[in-house]
Amino acid sequence: MRYPKLYVEKPKKPEKGKVVIEKDGKVIRFLEDNEEYEGEGKILYKVIYDDFPEYILMNELICDILLYYEFGGAKQITYLKKGTKLLEVLAEGYKVYPIVDFGCRILENHRLAAIQTRKGEIRFINTPVNGIVVFLQEIPHKRENYKFYILPDKEIEC
Amino acid sequence: MRYPKLYVEKPKKPEKGKVVIEKDGKVIRFLEDNEEYEGEGKILYKVIYDDFPEYILMNELICDILLYYEFGGAKQITYLKKGTKLLEVLAEGYKVYPIVDFGCRILENHRLAAIQTRKGEIRFINTPVNGIVVFLQEIPHKRENYKFYILPDKEIEC
Repeated sequence: MRYPKLYVEKPKKPEKGKVVIEKDGKVIRFLEDNEEYEGEGKILYKVIYDDFPEYILMNELICDILLYYEFGGAKQITYLKKGTKLLEVLAEGYKVYPIVDFGCRILENHRLAAIQTRKGEIRFINTPVNGIVVFLQEIPHKRENYKFYILPDKEIEC
Repeated sequence: MRYPKLYVEKPKKPEKGKVVIEKDGKVIRFLEDNEEYEGEGKILYKVIYDDFPEYILMNELICDILLYYEFGGAKQITYLKKGTKLLEVLAEGYKVYPIVDFGCRILENHRLAAIQTRKGEIRFINTPVNGIVVFLQEIPHKRENYKFYILPDKEIEC
Protein backbone atom coordinates (compact mmCIF):
# COMPACT_ATOMS: atom_id res chain seq x y z
CA MET A 1 0.00 0.00 0.00
CA ARG A 2 1.51 3.28 -1.08
CA TYR A 3 0.57 6.59 0.50
CA PRO A 4 0.04 9.97 -1.09
CA LYS A 5 2.58 12.72 -0.68
CA LEU A 6 1.43 15.71 1.34
CA TYR A 7 2.58 19.28 0.68
CA VAL A 8 1.58 22.20 2.91
CA GLU A 9 2.04 25.96 2.85
CA LYS A 10 3.17 26.32 6.45
CA PRO A 11 5.16 23.19 7.28
CA LYS A 12 5.93 22.37 10.88
CA LYS A 13 8.59 19.81 9.94
CA PRO A 14 9.46 20.27 6.26
CA GLU A 15 11.00 17.38 4.34
CA LYS A 16 12.73 17.42 0.98
CA GLY A 17 10.35 18.37 -1.83
CA LYS A 18 8.43 21.45 -2.97
CA VAL A 19 5.55 22.29 -5.25
CA VAL A 20 4.61 25.76 -6.49
CA ILE A 21 1.03 26.94 -7.05
CA GLU A 22 0.71 29.79 -9.53
CA LYS A 23 -2.37 31.70 -10.66
CA ASP A 24 -4.70 30.20 -8.05
CA GLY A 25 -3.92 26.63 -9.15
CA LYS A 26 -3.97 27.17 -12.91
CA VAL A 27 -0.28 26.24 -12.91
CA ILE A 28 1.11 23.50 -10.65
CA ARG A 29 4.85 23.03 -10.71
CA PHE A 30 6.75 20.30 -8.83
CA LEU A 31 10.31 21.52 -8.29
CA GLU A 32 13.37 19.34 -8.80
CA ASP A 33 15.47 18.70 -5.70
CA ASN A 34 18.03 21.33 -6.67
CA GLU A 35 15.67 23.73 -8.44
CA GLU A 36 15.38 27.31 -7.21
CA TYR A 37 12.12 29.23 -7.61
CA GLU A 38 11.88 32.99 -7.84
CA GLY A 39 8.38 33.61 -9.23
CA GLU A 40 5.36 34.93 -7.38
CA GLY A 41 3.70 31.58 -6.83
CA LYS A 42 2.86 30.02 -3.50
CA ILE A 43 5.37 27.41 -2.35
CA LEU A 44 4.11 24.28 -0.57
CA TYR A 45 6.56 22.03 1.27
CA LYS A 46 6.50 18.27 1.65
CA VAL A 47 5.70 16.93 5.11
CA ILE A 48 5.01 13.46 6.44
CA TYR A 49 1.57 12.25 5.31
CA ASP A 50 0.66 11.14 8.83
CA ASP A 51 0.96 14.73 10.04
CA PHE A 52 -2.18 15.73 8.08
CA PRO A 53 -4.30 16.38 11.22
CA GLU A 54 -1.77 19.00 12.38
CA TYR A 55 -2.96 21.24 9.55
CA ILE A 56 -6.59 21.19 10.64
CA LEU A 57 -8.14 23.36 13.33
CA MET A 58 -11.84 23.34 14.19
CA ASN A 59 -12.58 21.31 11.02
CA GLU A 60 -10.83 23.83 8.79
CA LEU A 61 -7.54 23.66 6.92
CA ILE A 62 -5.14 26.21 8.44
CA CYS A 63 -3.19 26.56 5.17
CA ASP A 64 -3.26 25.45 1.54
CA ILE A 65 -2.39 21.79 1.05
CA LEU A 66 -1.76 19.53 -1.91
CA LEU A 67 -2.03 15.75 -2.00
CA TYR A 68 -0.14 13.85 -4.69
CA TYR A 69 -0.77 10.20 -5.40
CA GLU A 70 0.85 8.07 -8.07
CA PHE A 71 -0.36 4.62 -9.06
CA GLY A 72 -0.50 2.39 -12.14
CA GLY A 73 0.90 5.04 -14.49
CA ALA A 74 -1.49 7.71 -13.22
CA LYS A 75 -0.80 10.86 -11.28
CA GLN A 76 -3.50 12.37 -9.12
CA ILE A 77 -3.29 15.83 -7.60
CA THR A 78 -5.76 17.27 -5.11
CA TYR A 79 -5.33 20.91 -4.17
CA LEU A 80 -7.25 22.25 -1.17
CA LYS A 81 -7.25 25.84 -0.02
CA LYS A 82 -6.85 27.29 3.45
CA GLY A 83 -10.24 27.50 5.14
CA THR A 84 -11.66 24.44 3.36
CA LYS A 85 -14.04 22.73 5.75
CA LEU A 86 -13.70 19.02 6.36
CA LEU A 87 -16.22 16.74 7.97
CA GLU A 88 -14.77 14.45 10.65
CA VAL A 89 -16.53 11.16 11.24
CA LEU A 90 -15.41 8.94 14.10
CA ALA A 91 -15.74 5.16 14.06
CA GLU A 92 -15.20 3.70 17.50
CA GLY A 93 -15.86 0.22 18.79
CA TYR A 94 -14.50 -2.98 20.29
CA LYS A 95 -13.33 -3.84 16.78
CA VAL A 96 -13.40 -1.40 13.86
CA TYR A 97 -13.02 -2.45 10.24
CA PRO A 98 -12.58 0.49 7.84
CA ILE A 99 -14.29 -0.17 4.52
CA VAL A 100 -13.11 2.88 2.60
CA ASP A 101 -9.68 4.48 2.48
CA PHE A 102 -8.06 7.82 1.57
CA GLY A 103 -8.95 8.92 -1.93
CA CYS A 104 -12.29 7.09 -1.92
CA ARG A 105 -15.14 9.12 -3.30
CA ILE A 106 -18.20 8.30 -1.24
CA LEU A 107 -21.87 8.89 -1.82
CA GLU A 108 -24.41 9.67 0.89
CA ASN A 109 -25.12 6.65 3.10
CA HIS A 110 -22.16 4.65 1.83
CA ARG A 111 -20.54 2.58 4.55
CA LEU A 112 -17.30 3.96 5.95
CA ALA A 113 -16.58 1.27 8.51
CA ALA A 114 -18.02 -1.79 10.20
CA ILE A 115 -18.00 -1.84 13.99
CA GLN A 116 -18.17 -4.91 16.17
CA THR A 117 -19.37 -4.53 19.73
CA ARG A 118 -18.02 -6.57 22.63
CA LYS A 119 -21.15 -8.75 22.35
CA GLY A 120 -20.33 -9.47 18.73
CA GLU A 121 -23.02 -7.29 17.19
CA ILE A 122 -22.13 -5.61 13.92
CA ARG A 123 -23.20 -2.13 12.91
CA PHE A 124 -22.08 0.27 10.23
CA ILE A 125 -20.88 3.87 10.21
CA ASN A 126 -22.20 5.67 7.12
CA THR A 127 -21.30 8.97 5.54
CA PRO A 128 -23.96 11.68 5.79
CA VAL A 129 -22.68 13.48 2.66
CA ASN A 130 -21.25 12.96 -0.82
CA GLY A 131 -17.53 13.65 -0.80
CA ILE A 132 -13.99 12.33 -0.79
CA VAL A 133 -12.10 10.72 2.07
CA VAL A 134 -8.92 12.79 2.23
CA PHE A 135 -7.39 11.21 5.30
CA LEU A 136 -7.98 8.23 7.54
CA GLN A 137 -6.48 8.45 11.00
CA GLU A 138 -6.03 5.56 13.38
CA ILE A 139 -6.18 6.92 16.91
CA PRO A 140 -4.33 4.87 19.51
CA HIS A 141 -6.80 4.14 22.30
CA LYS A 142 -8.07 1.31 24.48
CA ARG A 143 -11.04 0.92 22.14
CA GLU A 144 -10.34 0.89 18.41
CA ASN A 145 -10.75 4.29 16.91
CA TYR A 146 -10.63 5.61 13.36
CA LYS A 147 -11.34 9.13 12.23
CA PHE A 148 -12.40 9.80 8.63
CA TYR A 149 -11.68 13.28 7.25
CA ILE A 150 -14.18 13.89 4.47
CA LEU A 151 -14.17 16.70 1.95
CA PRO A 152 -17.85 17.20 1.09
CA ASP A 153 -18.91 17.92 -2.50
CA LYS A 154 -20.97 20.83 -1.23
CA GLU A 155 -19.34 23.27 1.11
CA ILE A 156 -20.48 22.82 4.71
CA GLU A 157 -22.64 25.65 5.94
CA CYS A 158 -22.28 26.92 9.48
CA MET B 1 -24.23 16.82 -10.29
CA ARG B 2 -21.19 18.39 -11.91
CA TYR B 3 -18.93 16.52 -14.28
CA PRO B 4 -15.16 16.56 -14.62
CA LYS B 5 -13.54 18.28 -17.56
CA LEU B 6 -11.72 16.00 -19.97
CA TYR B 7 -8.59 17.03 -21.89
CA VAL B 8 -6.96 14.76 -24.50
CA GLU B 9 -3.82 14.87 -26.59
CA LYS B 10 -5.46 13.97 -29.89
CA PRO B 11 -8.93 15.49 -29.81
CA LYS B 12 -11.52 14.37 -32.33
CA LYS B 13 -13.81 17.32 -31.62
CA PRO B 14 -11.83 19.93 -29.65
CA GLU B 15 -13.70 22.46 -27.54
CA LYS B 16 -12.42 25.68 -26.02
CA GLY B 17 -9.77 25.01 -23.37
CA LYS B 18 -6.20 23.71 -23.22
CA VAL B 19 -3.80 22.35 -20.65
CA VAL B 20 -0.05 21.90 -21.09
CA ILE B 21 1.94 19.04 -19.58
CA GLU B 22 5.63 19.78 -19.13
CA LYS B 23 8.46 17.57 -17.83
CA ASP B 24 6.39 14.39 -17.79
CA GLY B 25 3.73 15.92 -15.55
CA LYS B 26 6.01 17.77 -13.14
CA VAL B 27 4.44 20.99 -14.44
CA ILE B 28 0.73 21.25 -15.29
CA ARG B 29 -0.41 24.51 -16.81
CA PHE B 30 -4.03 25.38 -17.65
CA LEU B 31 -3.99 28.04 -20.37
CA GLU B 32 -6.23 31.10 -20.37
CA ASP B 33 -8.68 31.34 -23.25
CA ASN B 34 -6.50 33.81 -25.14
CA GLU B 35 -3.12 32.51 -23.97
CA GLU B 36 -0.59 31.33 -26.54
CA TYR B 37 1.90 28.59 -25.66
CA GLU B 38 5.28 28.19 -27.31
CA GLY B 39 7.18 25.87 -24.99
CA GLU B 40 8.05 22.24 -25.53
CA GLY B 41 5.26 20.81 -23.40
CA LYS B 42 2.51 18.50 -24.57
CA ILE B 43 -0.79 20.28 -25.26
CA LEU B 44 -4.04 18.55 -24.31
CA TYR B 45 -7.35 19.87 -25.64
CA LYS B 46 -10.72 19.95 -23.94
CA VAL B 47 -13.35 17.59 -25.32
CA ILE B 48 -16.82 16.59 -24.16
CA TYR B 49 -16.58 14.35 -21.09
CA ASP B 50 -19.05 11.87 -22.59
CA ASP B 51 -16.60 11.19 -25.43
CA PHE B 52 -14.17 9.46 -23.05
CA PRO B 53 -14.69 5.97 -24.58
CA GLU B 54 -13.53 7.30 -27.97
CA TYR B 55 -10.02 7.56 -26.55
CA ILE B 56 -9.82 3.91 -25.55
CA LEU B 57 -8.95 0.99 -27.82
CA MET B 58 -8.60 -2.58 -26.62
CA ASN B 59 -8.68 -1.41 -22.98
CA GLU B 60 -5.82 1.03 -23.54
CA LEU B 61 -5.75 4.80 -23.70
CA ILE B 62 -4.78 5.85 -27.23
CA CYS B 63 -3.34 9.17 -26.02
CA ASP B 64 -2.54 11.09 -22.84
CA ILE B 65 -5.60 12.39 -21.04
CA LEU B 66 -6.25 14.65 -18.08
CA LEU B 67 -9.38 14.79 -15.96
CA TYR B 68 -10.10 17.92 -13.96
CA TYR B 69 -12.74 18.07 -11.28
CA GLU B 70 -13.62 21.00 -9.04
CA PHE B 71 -15.82 20.74 -5.98
CA GLY B 72 -16.25 22.37 -2.57
CA GLY B 73 -13.14 24.56 -2.93
CA ALA B 74 -10.99 21.66 -4.08
CA LYS B 75 -9.36 21.01 -7.41
CA GLN B 76 -8.56 17.47 -8.45
CA ILE B 77 -6.39 16.59 -11.40
CA THR B 78 -5.83 13.07 -12.74
CA TYR B 79 -3.25 12.66 -15.48
CA LEU B 80 -3.16 9.36 -17.37
CA LYS B 81 -0.63 8.46 -20.03
CA LYS B 82 -1.13 6.88 -23.41
CA GLY B 83 -1.05 3.10 -23.09
CA THR B 84 -2.52 3.08 -19.58
CA LYS B 85 -4.63 -0.04 -19.26
CA LEU B 86 -8.16 0.25 -17.95
CA LEU B 87 -10.37 -2.52 -16.73
CA GLU B 88 -13.88 -2.48 -18.16
CA VAL B 89 -16.62 -4.01 -16.06
CA LEU B 90 -20.10 -4.35 -17.51
CA ALA B 91 -23.25 -4.29 -15.40
CA GLU B 92 -26.24 -5.50 -17.39
CA GLY B 93 -29.70 -6.43 -16.21
CA TYR B 94 -33.42 -5.79 -16.30
CA LYS B 95 -32.74 -2.90 -13.93
CA VAL B 96 -29.26 -1.64 -13.06
CA TYR B 97 -28.52 0.64 -10.13
CA PRO B 98 -24.95 2.01 -10.12
CA ILE B 99 -23.59 2.32 -6.59
CA VAL B 100 -20.28 4.05 -7.34
CA ASP B 101 -19.57 6.91 -9.70
CA PHE B 102 -16.61 8.46 -11.53
CA GLY B 103 -13.80 9.44 -9.20
CA CYS B 104 -14.69 6.74 -6.67
CA ARG B 105 -11.70 4.89 -5.33
CA ILE B 106 -12.77 1.28 -4.88
CA LEU B 107 -11.24 -1.59 -3.02
CA GLU B 108 -11.38 -5.23 -4.09
CA ASN B 109 -14.88 -6.71 -3.78
CA HIS B 110 -16.59 -3.35 -3.31
CA ARG B 111 -19.97 -3.22 -4.97
CA LEU B 112 -20.12 -1.33 -8.26
CA ALA B 113 -23.78 -1.82 -9.05
CA ALA B 114 -26.91 -3.66 -8.01
CA ILE B 115 -28.75 -5.60 -10.69
CA GLN B 116 -32.38 -6.61 -10.61
CA THR B 117 -33.50 -9.52 -12.77
CA ARG B 118 -36.89 -9.67 -14.44
CA LYS B 119 -38.00 -12.02 -11.63
CA GLY B 120 -37.06 -9.38 -9.06
CA GLU B 121 -33.92 -11.05 -7.79
CA ILE B 122 -31.11 -8.74 -6.74
CA ARG B 123 -27.44 -9.43 -7.27
CA PHE B 124 -24.34 -7.31 -7.11
CA ILE B 125 -21.48 -6.58 -9.49
CA ASN B 126 -18.22 -6.25 -7.57
CA THR B 127 -14.83 -4.94 -8.57
CA PRO B 128 -12.07 -7.56 -8.85
CA VAL B 129 -9.31 -5.00 -8.14
CA ASN B 130 -8.40 -1.93 -6.10
CA GLY B 131 -8.56 1.16 -8.27
CA ILE B 132 -10.41 4.28 -9.32
CA VAL B 133 -13.55 4.54 -11.45
CA VAL B 134 -12.50 6.99 -14.14
CA PHE B 135 -15.63 6.83 -16.26
CA LEU B 136 -19.13 5.44 -16.04
CA GLN B 137 -20.88 4.89 -19.35
CA GLU B 138 -24.58 4.31 -19.80
CA ILE B 139 -25.05 2.23 -22.94
CA PRO B 140 -28.43 2.65 -24.65
CA HIS B 141 -29.86 -0.86 -25.07
CA LYS B 142 -33.06 -2.83 -24.57
CA ARG B 143 -31.68 -4.11 -21.29
CA GLU B 144 -30.08 -1.59 -18.94
CA ASN B 145 -26.37 -1.43 -19.40
CA TYR B 146 -23.58 0.38 -17.59
CA LYS B 147 -19.88 0.07 -18.24
CA PHE B 148 -17.40 0.98 -15.50
CA TYR B 149 -13.90 2.01 -16.63
CA ILE B 150 -11.56 1.26 -13.76
CA LEU B 151 -7.94 2.33 -13.41
CA PRO B 152 -6.36 -0.39 -11.25
CA ASP B 153 -3.84 0.53 -8.54
CA LYS B 154 -1.52 -2.10 -9.92
CA GLU B 155 -0.86 -2.15 -13.62
CA ILE B 156 -2.71 -4.93 -15.41
CA GLU B 157 -0.42 -7.67 -16.62
CA CYS B 158 -1.05 -9.33 -19.94
